[in-house]
Amino acid sequence: MKSKTYIEISEVGPRDGLQSIKTIMPLEAKKNWISTAAKAGVPEIEVGSFVPAHILPQLADTAELVAHALTIPNLKVAVLVPNLKGVENAIKAGAHKITIPVSASETHSLKNVNRTHKQMIDEIENIMRIIKTIPIDKRPNFEGGISTAFGCTIEGKVSKNKIIELAVSLMDAGCDQVGLSDTTGYATPNHIINFVKAVKNEIGDQNLTGLHLHNTRGLGLANVVAALDHGITTFDASLGGIGGCPFAPGASGNIVTEDLVFMLNSMGYDTGIDIEKLLSVRTIVRDALPDETLYGFLPDAGIPKGKYYGD
Amino acid sequence: MKSKTYIEISEVGPRDGLQSIKTIMPLEAKKNWISTAAKAGVPEIEVGSFVPAHILPQLADTAELVAHALTIPNLKVAVLVPNLKGVENAIKAGAHKITIPVSASETHSLKNVNRTHKQMIDEIENIMRIIKTIPIDKRPNFEGGISTAFGCTIEGKVSKNKIIELAVSLMDAGCDQVGLSDTTGYATPNHIINFVKAVKNEIGDQNLTGLHLHNTRGLGLANVVAALDHGITTFDASLGGIGGCPFAPGASGNIVTEDLVFMLNSMGYDTGIDIEKLLSVRTIVRDALPDETLYGFLPDAGIPKGKYYGD
Repeated sequence: MKSKTYIEISEVGPRDGLQSIKTIMPLEAKKNWISTAAKAGVPEIEVGSFVPAHILPQLADTAELVAHALTIPNLKVAVLVPNLKGVENAIKAGAHKITIPVSASETHSLKNVNRTHKQMIDEIENIMRIIKTIPIDKRPNFEGGISTAFGCTIEGKVSKNKIIELAVSLMDAGCDQVGLSDTTGYATPNHIINFVKAVKNEIGDQNLTGLHLHNTRGLGLANVVAALDHGITTFDASLGGIGGCPFAPGASGNIVTEDLVFMLNSMGYDTGIDIEKLLSVRTIVRDALPDETLYGFLPDAGIPKGKYYGD
Repeated sequence: MKSKTYIEISEVGPRDGLQSIKTIMPLEAKKNWISTAAKAGVPEIEVGSFVPAHILPQLADTAELVAHALTIPNLKVAVLVPNLKGVENAIKAGAHKITIPVSASETHSLKNVNRTHKQMIDEIENIMRIIKTIPIDKRPNFEGGISTAFGCTIEGKVSKNKIIELAVSLMDAGCDQVGLSDTTGYATPNHIINFVKAVKNEIGDQNLTGLHLHNTRGLGLANVVAALDHGITTFDASLGGIGGCPFAPGASGNIVTEDLVFMLNSMGYDTGIDIEKLLSVRTIVRDALPDETLYGFLPDAGIPKGKYYGD
């Protein structure tokens, strides 16, 4: 029997989801969300972001969440950081994986973190100097996440050459790998294939394995199907599809973890996630955020009769 | 320059959409919808169904709509029929294409049209005897549409062998081609590939080119991406995603024409449809059905800045 291909789901709801809504989810609810998702089999959770609390008060408890998540066996604990200061906090907290977003659109980068590309790359070089002082077996994985990679709500088109150039700069600066983020929901299936192939070709197949996709124009899962055929093995998703980017107007909606896992499991991929247990996590999120909309088709329609996934 | 692959969109909103909602759309609004969609470049429209008015009063004006649609240059005018009587009416009206649905689930077939598979095939043989009396250049195209092909809300799993068997019976009975319908929204990408390959293998590549997909579990466009790689060139869709099957509880939501066309155009396929003109058709439908929900992601998010479709 052919063994199934493993596809890694990174739940980014506690970070990307919660940063884009005004309601602050209580710490205990966040912990419960993380624990329950991990019990359903979610292998990686981006639990928060080390940004100043006055900018994103929703994520002010990230250090506590990392500490909590580290007590869960086999869970990869991921965080986002905007800069060197964030990395220092992430290292102190003990995160397994640290991602720094770099916007492919320089206009977006300036609006988001007030830095040019050059300044971002300089910052990452400084970050890597610190990370490399950590013994290799304790070193966190450090990813350069290219955001607005497939288009920008301010600049419009983002060229393939710009993405390749940034990916190379990030690897040269010392990142362990890069990821591509469709922050604005502009990506379409051929666009994904085109950019993924070009970047892999330049930096090596193993250095681009993850995508962060949004469902802004309904193409999120179609884009996943395209990416699966081109060596992408890690997908970010948000429970209930909450989330988006507060600095890219009109761009909202991570792909829904429940729908993504249903699709991948039904396609014969191994996600390690129990879809029924995952669906039950919604109750925690809904109870803690009664005024927020939860998205997702599978949760409304239900698992097909007889748990029939096609064959 | 490589010429683009043509993908044919069949707008089924005036039939599948309107039959599943209680509000009856006024005849003039339907005519306006059809004309405006055709002007946007939609090549085929399923304008209604020849069923008794007491069963589906929403579609009682199908004959008038066929007459109207026939005045539009280059538009392929399609209708659905449940039986021989419907075919007679469709021929009298002058429809270019007639589809008869045959449910892969016999339980669903009995509930929907009170007929077993055997009775359906007998009916189609009788229908073909009539159709074959028409001079070949005036003969409508006749399709056997296998509904609940990917699973049934009553029976659950539908086996591949059952689908192959039905497809062969439909071709043997004289249908010009078969189509597969995911009436219940159970289909997943590999499921689509598996069944499409198996049926094409048995009845010939050219005799299965169309799919009718629903977005019930959010996988509609992901299923399209899978199907495009396996010789499917015609997709049904419904403007605003209205529609479903009144006899398959919980199964609702045709794929949204706007989102589908946006995706296909962005992938470099030739649909012949102007996405901006297509989006403007929503106004007609919304004005005529103010109490109904219109779906679709693209309409909310808008066309990407700079009309940027990726490259």
